[in-house]
Amino acid sequence: MSSVAIPDGSPFSIHNLPYGVFSVRGDHRRVGVRLGDSVIELATLLGDDEHDTFAVPTLDRFLAQGHERWASVRARITDLLMGDIAPGGVYPVSDVTLHLPFTVGDYVDFYASQHHASNLGRLFRPDSEPLMPNWKHLPVGYHGRSGTVVVSGTDICRPCGQRKTAGDSAPTYGPSQRLDIEAELGFVVGAGSDMGDRINVDDFDRHVFGAVIVNDWSARDLQAWEYVPLGPHLGKSFATSLSPWVVPLAALQHARMPLPVQDPAPLPYLQGHQDWGLDVELVVEWNGEVVSRPPYREMYWSPAQMLAHLTVNGASTRAGDLFASGTVSGPHRRQQGAFIELTWNGSEPITVKGEERTFLQDGDEVVISATAPGPGENRVGFGEVAGVITPAVPR
Amino acid sequence: MSSVAIPDGSPFSIHNLPYGVFSVRGDHRRVGVRLGDSVIELATLLGDDEHDTFAVPTLDRFLAQGHERWASVRARITDLLMGDIAPGGVYPVSDVTLHLPFTVGDYVDFYASQHHASNLGRLFRPDSEPLMPNWKHLPVGYHGRSGTVVVSGTDICRPCGQRKTAGDSAPTYGPSQRLDIEAELGFVVGAGSDMGDRINVDDFDRHVFGAVIVNDWSARDLQAWEYVPLGPHLGKSFATSLSPWVVPLAALQHARMPLPVQDPAPLPYLQGHQDWGLDVELVVEWNGEVVSRPPYREMYWSPAQMLAHLTVNGASTRAGDLFASGTVSGPHRRQQGAFIELTWNGSEPITVKGEERTFLQDGDEVVISATAPGPGENRVGFGEVAGVITPAVPR
Repeated sequence: MSSVAIPDGSPFSIHNLPYGVFSVRGDHRRVGVRLGDSVIELATLLGDDEHDTFAVPTLDRFLAQGHERWASVRARITDLLMGDIAPGGVYPVSDVTLHLPFTVGDYVDFYASQHHASNLGRLFRPDSEPLMPNWKHLPVGYHGRSGTVVVSGTDICRPCGQRKTAGDSAPTYGPSQRLDIEAELGFVVGAGSDMGDRINVDDFDRHVFGAVIVNDWSARDLQAWEYVPLGPHLGKSFATSLSPWVVPLAALQHARMPLPVQDPAPLPYLQGHQDWGLDVELVVEWNGEVVSRPPYREMYWSPAQMLAHLTVNGASTRAGDLFASGTVSGPHRRQQGAFIELTWNGSEPITVKGEERTFLQDGDEVVISATAPGPGENRVGFGEVAGVITPAVPR
Repeated sequence: MSSVAIPDGSPFSIHNLPYGVFSVRGDHRRVGVRLGDSVIELATLLGDDEHDTFAVPTLDRFLAQGHERWASVRARITDLLMGDIAPGGVYPVSDVTLHLPFTVGDYVDFYASQHHASNLGRLFRPDSEPLMPNWKHLPVGYHGRSGTVVVSGTDICRPCGQRKTAGDSAPTYGPSQRLDIEAELGFVVGAGSDMGDRINVDDFDRHVFGAVIVNDWSARDLQAWEYVPLGPHLGKSFATSLSPWVVPLAALQHARMPLPVQDPAPLPYLQGHQDWGLDVELVVEWNGEVVSRPPYREMYWSPAQMLAHLTVNGASTRAGDLFASGTVSGPHRRQQGAFIELTWNGSEPITVKGEERTFLQDGDEVVISATAPGPGENRVGFGEVAGVITPAVPR
């Protein structure tokens, strides 16, 4: 029997325990939790009774089991890992391959940062009010493509499509020349809801299992030409990357905080009694250089409000539904979660590794990481979502 | 041995043979084809070798097997049904329950009728050009909610949500007062494509298995308030209904026809050498009275162009992906596929069963049916998609 070594200051302390799906040298996929620099195979740790839930290639079954099971399993894992455990089923994280941890049902992307929505309004619609009249009354969002949600580390092929600038008489076809990121948090639905039901804003943590980091890759030139009147489509649908570890909401209790003041007060179905503002710090690295630190605490709408809104019309939800916050941008310089804002649509390049840069070039790597306050000295880590841009495929 | 009786003039002749999923008095779901007023259980007809594909509760496996298998299975079914078959595994359609025939992957809804897009532009944006500048250059579309796609016959609960009219100082919350339909055709992807690949406009029938009728229920008051700038969301996501029979593309060969002239010529990736205009006649019945006959032949963009556009950025597709045409509306009176057009946003009521009507009331039933030309006298039937509006659930 032995205990798992945890490096001092690790963001994967016993208070975090995020869930993921891993394999070792090409063998079968199964569910694990991360502790320090180790991955603990849950079917081994928890024993035969839990094989049906954890010796499987996705978190789907566990997600669907509901918040009481999530709590009891977390308590049992914590107890076991506080003591000595059998040496089997523990792997160095450097030895495992991490996979998309759940089957994505529907994917909805919100637009919940006032700073981001205002900046994009100014850039896309310079002659109008930057915020639309509805923006402070409801969390604006839209459905994205769930089939192209991929795990961190997946290469991102530069998309082709139509773009037309103000000076062009007609659109042209070719590789996107304004490829961008959007640094976001995503929330993973576990226990779903039936058609016709609504999820109360205070029942958020009965339905949502945990959170991940999202990079909503965006081709701004495609998006600008296509998005009126039905919203973003090809400019977003080519790829969305997730961090591989799902941080349970239970690990984010110390990150909870009040939202910024909402004025005007939202309609009653969006008013809750629980704080679901989250003091999560994101960090955006471009080719290894930190270019931005978007503060999630600045978000105008909470994820509990997003879910209440998503279901207020009776839309059903199911295990594996994913909804993301939209780009996290703060009010200050170097707090924006998209390069279109950081470089003001390319007109104000930033210096990255000594070069002036605006949008993504082939070969660029973007890594977004995030941490939140924990119960002690250690922060709670989300890990990271990484991706490298590969050249457009000629046709 | 016996042969299956086919009523004279049946739209389910031997030249149609649509696929569906059925059960009998609550037993297991399995795949069948419709012939006349009978449902033929395919695992029984085709024998043990085909159990894995057809003695299963969805068409998913068959869809993924690709166009050569679709052709060979159709040829074998046709041969068998032209002769005498064993009496087992044949059920009167009145004795079976029909289910959602496949697991919906991603659902994309297009906006491919110039008449519909122009009408909605006039209604939603009366001070602007009705067609956006991009409309004639690309098939505009957006992702809808796949988790709320339901089979014909499912009750539709009136959605609640936010709405704000020009006279209101702030939005209010409550049941939609402008509940509407959209009569569309939907196309079911069988053989998918990988991330980074694109589906050539002339490879449409290698990837798409067949077509269904779609009713994209729409809450116009919710939609009008929410849809800027990211497109429709709550106004659509509560429910989308499908007809239960998937008509194979092979049964629609006689419906194929040239598109209306596309001017300006679309970019090369949208130009094909095959005609995928479709001479399908839709019929909309409101409480049993025919109120509209939308002609699919008027659609500006073909489904082959929709799929080529959907994947031009390298977005992957998979078996069960569904894309719909958007509302089918023709140029003439009583050819519109949505009540917002038929009643000009409620300002010109129509008479239904002796009553003046604009949008849907609780208890209303809408049935959309469709047929296409076949090889002989008989038309090829899609069957119908039906739904009854139930009252909003108070909260």
